[in-house]
Amino acid sequence: MTEKAIFYHAGCSVCLDAEQVVADAIDPARYDVESVHLGETPGRVTEAESAGVRSVPALVLGGQAYHINFGAPIDALRA
Amino acid sequence: MTEKAIFYHAGCSVCLDAEQVVADAIDPARYDVESVHLGETPGRVTEAESAGVRSVPALVLGGQAYHINFGAPIDALRA
Repeated sequence: MTEKAIFYHAGCSVCLDAEQVVADAIDPARYDVESVHLGETPGRVTEAESAGVRSVPALVLGGQAYHINFGAPIDALRA
Repeated sequence: MTEKAIFYHAGCSVCLDAEQVVADAIDPARYDVESVHLGETPGRVTEAESAGVRSVPALVLGGQAYHINFGAPIDALRA
């Protein structure tokens, strides 16, 4: 049984690097990692904010938001 | 063959949460995660800074530093 993990990003270079290294390092035996590009799916910005995401890239794990370095503030991604 | 990953922290609550959730989620089949408490081993602050760590908690993976949320600036941890 895997737990859901969501990696929110916006296609920025800081985001892509974090996706390729940190999100990719997550144990696939325990986590099902979904990658969400908020620039392409602005309808999910509210969901990300509700999970505590304030900037991207961020990883939501176990109901908590973990901001990884800093690419862009979430306010900049609202449609 | 596992790759080395180092999680630098300072025992703060933000650090411990990130350690228990993010560092613990790293795939043990691919990464050997070492946890370093810089408050207890200030002699490793220089090593962390050389890896690009500017604040804790941070994870060094593949030679890059990934700052996870924000607990304390590394300057505060110098002996």
